[in-house]
Amino acid sequence: MRVTIINIGDELLIGQVVNTNASTMSRMLTAAGMDVRRTVVVGDVYQDIWNAVDEAMHESDAVLVTGGLGPTKDDITKKLLCEYFGSELEESPVALDNVKRIFASRGYDLTPVNRAQALVPKCCEVLNNDLGTAPCMWFAHGGKVLVSLPGVPFEMDWLMRNRVVPKLQETFHTDVILTKNILVQGIGESFLSDLIEPWELSLPKNIKLAYLPVAGMVKLRLTAHNTTDLPLQGLYDLAGKYIVGEDCETLDELVHKTLIARGKTLTTAESCTGGNIARLLTAQASASAYFRGGVVAYSNEVKESVLGVKHETLAQHGAVSEETVREMVEGVRQRLGADYAIATTGIAGPGGGTPDKPVGTVWVAVCSKDKTVTQLMHYGDRRQQTIDRTTNQAYSMLIKLICQED
Amino acid sequence: MRVTIINIGDELLIGQVVNTNASTMSRMLTAAGMDVRRTVVVGDVYQDIWNAVDEAMHESDAVLVTGGLGPTKDDITKKLLCEYFGSELEESPVALDNVKRIFASRGYDLTPVNRAQALVPKCCEVLNNDLGTAPCMWFAHGGKVLVSLPGVPFEMDWLMRNRVVPKLQETFHTDVILTKNILVQGIGESFLSDLIEPWELSLPKNIKLAYLPVAGMVKLRLTAHNTTDLPLQGLYDLAGKYIVGEDCETLDELVHKTLIARGKTLTTAESCTGGNIARLLTAQASASAYFRGGVVAYSNEVKESVLGVKHETLAQHGAVSEETVREMVEGVRQRLGADYAIATTGIAGPGGGTPDKPVGTVWVAVCSKDKTVTQLMHYGDRRQQTIDRTTNQAYSMLIKLICQED
Repeated sequence: MRVTIINIGDELLIGQVVNTNASTMSRMLTAAGMDVRRTVVVGDVYQDIWNAVDEAMHESDAVLVTGGLGPTKDDITKKLLCEYFGSELEESPVALDNVKRIFASRGYDLTPVNRAQALVPKCCEVLNNDLGTAPCMWFAHGGKVLVSLPGVPFEMDWLMRNRVVPKLQETFHTDVILTKNILVQGIGESFLSDLIEPWELSLPKNIKLAYLPVAGMVKLRLTAHNTTDLPLQGLYDLAGKYIVGEDCETLDELVHKTLIARGKTLTTAESCTGGNIARLLTAQASASAYFRGGVVAYSNEVKESVLGVKHETLAQHGAVSEETVREMVEGVRQRLGADYAIATTGIAGPGGGTPDKPVGTVWVAVCSKDKTVTQLMHYGDRRQQTIDRTTNQAYSMLIKLICQED
Repeated sequence: MRVTIINIGDELLIGQVVNTNASTMSRMLTAAGMDVRRTVVVGDVYQDIWNAVDEAMHESDAVLVTGGLGPTKDDITKKLLCEYFGSELEESPVALDNVKRIFASRGYDLTPVNRAQALVPKCCEVLNNDLGTAPCMWFAHGGKVLVSLPGVPFEMDWLMRNRVVPKLQETFHTDVILTKNILVQGIGESFLSDLIEPWELSLPKNIKLAYLPVAGMVKLRLTAHNTTDLPLQGLYDLAGKYIVGEDCETLDELVHKTLIARGKTLTTAESCTGGNIARLLTAQASASAYFRGGVVAYSNEVKESVLGVKHETLAQHGAVSEETVREMVEGVRQRLGADYAIATTGIAGPGGGTPDKPVGTVWVAVCSKDKTVTQLMHYGDRRQQTIDRTTNQAYSMLIKLICQED
């Protein structure tokens, strides 16, 4: 079953908004055994949308369209689909009730602009959008399906999960697909590829391998059709020492699950990562089960006053040094009271480098009650990359420390 | 001049990686006066890539392709383009020197897999990729251009900026396009649309308006062709009190610029936002000019010990209360020593709600030496949305406070 996704919006096409909808939808469809063959972005231009819809209806069994359903004037999808399917707009009682319900729940009066959101092509079925006023429309046409969804990410997400994917699964018959992630850290993509080549060449045809390098980590993704038997032993034999974990999308998710499973707590002292380590963990529900809190120790004064780093240490060795990162990690663990701590200090750039400590110099530390581990890293001069790589380095070091203490 | 972008990669099509390349490239091309008409994602499948390339070469003047150039086995773009343009692969001395240079700089030996990266179609021109081993290839064909870039975001970014966009501008003649952002906060998209309708209807045809709602804020984007005269007064007359700033993409960028311009400093005390407010600021170069540091005060103990929130306040009013957020914001400003402070405390969910304080209840505060402002917000039960909206609410309150004190 082939699927094409079309995301509509000038904001996507001029690059002012990152198209997260495509990846969210692709992930859900893939997990449900459907084959996303293409995603397309077009602007709020009638003819461009028409061409994209027409091509997709020829190529694929199902076409999912987002965007262009809002109440504002740059939105034109609904009228276009009405014309494409040779239908006419009429007020849908289901959609109108939904718009009324949502406005009432917010204590607002219904405006004419919003009432117009209940107009839909006669030939479509309205799938109720519990979270918003834009209708979700299901068109069945010549054995194929086109679904029009709002572009607002959380509404799209809810509709996909609760309405669209289940109805697609019901309508089409789909393969069973198994995907498995293996997180590898401390080796570059091409070296990893050389290292595991014998295993990769031995994989059966119904198992596909992809390398997904992200911020100093490589995620290996295995996709298996109609089998649950993944031959992982060969991979562990060749590259076991670089494998940090399985079955997570990211290292922050792995840290989250590892700490919750063991009932251990964590604190953080971040300089160059600026809160990134804490925010990725706390973006996950139930982070309060293990995360005590953290300090973004950007200035030296904060490193001293809040974390207890000694003035002499900073004066003698500098903020970016093994001595400082050690005092940061041990200080934050003791002062904020936790089983484990992470600390980072470095020069993310573009300014602040010296011949001794060029931009990209970073110290990372993790500690428990009994042990502190520090590591010097040399990243380049790309600020966000240094932040992201330092974050993954810290998570990876923490997981290794926790596993050693098991 | 019409441009199509094609991003290749199974990882994009199954949704495990968000396609930030499309938005980065679109932004640069739009700013350079080019018209991105369509972006397409296809997987590592020969025929699907071929079809996308062939369609794009018919529709557009320039086609930019990313991905499929790495050393690993799932990458096939180069061979396909060689066949598409009826050429054959040969080792490029320029590309080989580059691969050797990069391996030498990292202290690694060249592997056969990496040497093969210097093979390119005879008919293309190699644009040197200073940051990586994958070559950037420029194909001129029948008055049109196809450029193949690596999919690694920072390599693509550098190549676009330094090689591809300048060469496209040289090759094609382009319109002068002006874009302007106006950041609006505190009013929903449909109410804003009603409010500014008279102004919107009066805009000349060469000025386009788009509404970009993001996390509790609406970014209005004006795109003007061949004019620098934007009639903003009418907008300010109707919606001035909701306008927070201009000429920034995001509120964190506006906070960053505002504090640097005024030489003022900031600290943060974050509970429900978990470090997100700090990390967005510190992701920008030169944040150390104003950002002293912050505390992620996730547990009550940290609120007391690090920020000095009184035990009685927490016991009597709870962590999510006006009294607590006030002590947090004033405590962090004094203890970390800054001109301004931000604090957040709330229930991001999905757990932790009570009948009195349901999930989505958030208190936000900002303060200076002379004034503290607090605000109660009611968001829904979507964790990330609550974090993002709280973040923007805090930035907006801070900017208003700073402007009042000017």
